[in-house]
Amino acid sequence: MPSPTNSSITRWSMRSCAKASSSNSSTERKERRRLMTMTQDVAGFAAAFSLRTAPAELLPRVREAFLDSFGVMLAGSREESARIAARWIRIERAEGSCAVIAQRDFRTSPANAALANGVAAHTLDYDHFGHQSAVMVPCVLAAGEAKGCSGRELIEAYIVGVEVSALLAKGMGKEAQGIGLHPAGVCGSLGAAAAAGKIFHLGPEQIQIGLGIAASLTAGLSQNFGTMVKPLHLGNAARNGIMAAQLAAAGFTANPQIFDQAGGFFGALSAEETSEKLGKHFRFLQPGIAFKAYPCPYSSQRAVDAIIKIAERHNMIPDDVTEITCAAAPKTFRVLIHHRPTTSLEAKFSLEYLLAAGLKLRTIDEECFSPEHVNDPEMRGLVEKVRSIDAHLEREIPGEGDVTVQVRTRAAVFEETVTYAPGHPKNPLTWERLAEKYRACARQGEIQEPTLSRSLEMLSRIEDIDDVRDLMRIFATQDLAREQVR
Amino acid sequence: MPSPTNSSITRWSMRSCAKASSSNSSTERKERRRLMTMTQDVAGFAAAFSLRTAPAELLPRVREAFLDSFGVMLAGSREESARIAARWIRIERAEGSCAVIAQRDFRTSPANAALANGVAAHTLDYDHFGHQSAVMVPCVLAAGEAKGCSGRELIEAYIVGVEVSALLAKGMGKEAQGIGLHPAGVCGSLGAAAAAGKIFHLGPEQIQIGLGIAASLTAGLSQNFGTMVKPLHLGNAARNGIMAAQLAAAGFTANPQIFDQAGGFFGALSAEETSEKLGKHFRFLQPGIAFKAYPCPYSSQRAVDAIIKIAERHNMIPDDVTEITCAAAPKTFRVLIHHRPTTSLEAKFSLEYLLAAGLKLRTIDEECFSPEHVNDPEMRGLVEKVRSIDAHLEREIPGEGDVTVQVRTRAAVFEETVTYAPGHPKNPLTWERLAEKYRACARQGEIQEPTLSRSLEMLSRIEDIDDVRDLMRIFATQDLAREQVR
Repeated sequence: MPSPTNSSITRWSMRSCAKASSSNSSTERKERRRLMTMTQDVAGFAAAFSLRTAPAELLPRVREAFLDSFGVMLAGSREESARIAARWIRIERAEGSCAVIAQRDFRTSPANAALANGVAAHTLDYDHFGHQSAVMVPCVLAAGEAKGCSGRELIEAYIVGVEVSALLAKGMGKEAQGIGLHPAGVCGSLGAAAAAGKIFHLGPEQIQIGLGIAASLTAGLSQNFGTMVKPLHLGNAARNGIMAAQLAAAGFTANPQIFDQAGGFFGALSAEETSEKLGKHFRFLQPGIAFKAYPCPYSSQRAVDAIIKIAERHNMIPDDVTEITCAAAPKTFRVLIHHRPTTSLEAKFSLEYLLAAGLKLRTIDEECFSPEHVNDPEMRGLVEKVRSIDAHLEREIPGEGDVTVQVRTRAAVFEETVTYAPGHPKNPLTWERLAEKYRACARQGEIQEPTLSRSLEMLSRIEDIDDVRDLMRIFATQDLAREQVR
Repeated sequence: MPSPTNSSITRWSMRSCAKASSSNSSTERKERRRLMTMTQDVAGFAAAFSLRTAPAELLPRVREAFLDSFGVMLAGSREESARIAARWIRIERAEGSCAVIAQRDFRTSPANAALANGVAAHTLDYDHFGHQSAVMVPCVLAAGEAKGCSGRELIEAYIVGVEVSALLAKGMGKEAQGIGLHPAGVCGSLGAAAAAGKIFHLGPEQIQIGLGIAASLTAGLSQNFGTMVKPLHLGNAARNGIMAAQLAAAGFTANPQIFDQAGGFFGALSAEETSEKLGKHFRFLQPGIAFKAYPCPYSSQRAVDAIIKIAERHNMIPDDVTEITCAAAPKTFRVLIHHRPTTSLEAKFSLEYLLAAGLKLRTIDEECFSPEHVNDPEMRGLVEKVRSIDAHLEREIPGEGDVTVQVRTRAAVFEETVTYAPGHPKNPLTWERLAEKYRACARQGEIQEPTLSRSLEMLSRIEDIDDVRDLMRIFATQDLAREQVR
């Protein structure tokens, strides 16, 4: 086979960093970076990134993201999709030192652990907007357990993975999504390759190779949304990243300029190139990570927040309610396709149900979607009273824009407008609120006290952990103890 | 998550087979099939296909394809790419009953064995045109070893995989290749999902799910050609197919109409739909499988065949040769980019070297690319005498069209025209010639007598094998014996 030539490099100049002047003046350093290809730039950022020189505001946001990711992973691990993925891993019988959440009696290889944990992390769709963490947390945990990394190393690799993946997802733009590719899956593999490469201490050239390998492994069709394959996109991305980094470390060859050639990553996967460089801005700070406050679609979070505020403030009897209206920019609620839900899953995708349940139960958690609630005649009565209204607004950025809920009773009208979804960077959740979400998720994942508090404590200072295996071990201890009792 | 709706089905009618009349008259059976979606049709073919009702001419062609695939897999297993892939599998430490070629002291899981053997099968690019077997043989071997299948079951699943993969590759057409996707990899995963599904005795509905899963796992960028990632495309496709079938068997959900929805397989991966139905024509018969007679690019096979014929017929001394010309349709030799090769790999991609070596050595085999030959001054002298000529011909189907080689000496001119590449269905290789290729490949893979003859004998009647593990065991025996001697 002929070696890949560099003749078709499109945007970035091909002169390599190494060939440029070796002087270290700031101007010359900038000039060297300008002359790098995008692949070199991404790999260089991945290899060089350090918390020491990063903005101090990053760390609190990363702690929140880890806490949130652990929560949704624990809760998701009990779902059927995660159970089947874990069963598949068991059939593979790959031995290793890496934990699979909720499968406490066995350990497996990094690639397999990343796969199963990635499925668990996204299966409830309760992870943050953009879904980068549902790939990167399982990826760095598995790679980190294999290497015995510190919390700090874990965090550095995680940030690299999220930034690379988010940059590429930006480039994928609407065209790729329009034809049916799932950016979180497709770009996740590349971010995971960079993150795993960093954990394995690969140099920038090896990370370039890892990116080339990952680009030929990555996939994900949006026509599989609404099935168990959607979370598999993220689990497989985490697995792809680890495999790509391991193969690169072992001397496998690949196109080292996969972001820079016609017919490479961007061309083949309908993404647009971006001239944005990594490490200047961090997605954690700008635009920031948007967490989900409630276990339902992102577009419904503002409406749910508004109805709960009304319900908490005014003591209403469902029978007194004559109408509930919800006004938002047209198409805001287009994924909420079930108007008269009869199952738990349908109820999650029903604006009518979410508003009815929020009013009656004054919260939206997993329990609200139980068949008892969904089939409760009083709830069904409330569902009939909900009406969605198109407001004279433009729908722009997800999670942003006024959503106004109005509840009419025989005696009065109560109204609440929420502009930013709770968890949106402009309407952030406090650590306490995130910890509350974590506790609910962990209980769903059958984590009990004192493990629950102990894990929360460790996650609140993840940067101080000496060995990530200590963190993963606490999830194992409880269950092993229980197994012995049986 | 909302369930995938069927609203966007494009070409095929959605009325399901089950809903159609249950009468069995031929007209009604045809009508039922016409009403199936493409995904249903493909899955139905996969589940129902049987050698009993297939054309009798299929079996001899399939025997040839298995023999050829085993040969190239054995030879490829000693290459660096296959060694690294096998080393990765070893690190995974997945236990199982499946053999990895050339790794005789351990067994692994079906998915991992398929991956490593798929890399081996394509790494020399000596497998047949279209490369379906480099995915399907490793896939059905691994799945078949896990289940203890008969040779007949293996063959049936293999035919299904090749037909599905070839049908989809046809649909991918030039657009997808133009943007940089590798059809053999992308379509291979889907064929492998159907083949593995058949081995695992999945019903048609489960195979539909397996196809949906595989469509979200499949990948392969042509910008990785010329690197170790190209054979990884095929190995990963074999792995994807097995994983998809196993997940479908375990109850994983996926879009069951992945070939029939806008933004599904065809839309997202730039393939065109096809209305062709499987099981009417077989790729093995029409157009037939084009094997490679020489271990060099497919486009060079006619030129190599012509020069060897001239060299065998006329006893020429290289010094007497004044010029070698090769006339073919313009761009026929565009992948032969090295005109003055200095390495073995470059020599494989050099028309000049191939003609010089064919003349001097009267054959083209792996040995011809040794550094001694590549750097031989007499060979270099001959290389200088080769000239490529654009003939007034249109380049149409690969491997077809006149290629004329002329050798001028001081005394005479010798000419030979080859219209179809040796191994092309219209210029087929005899079983003896394929067996000769197999022997050379097997020796390259360090298979010695009596194992070599024993394996050749078993492959010549693969349909009679009771348990595929007996076939795989003979490759293990020799080496295990040798290990014990050490």
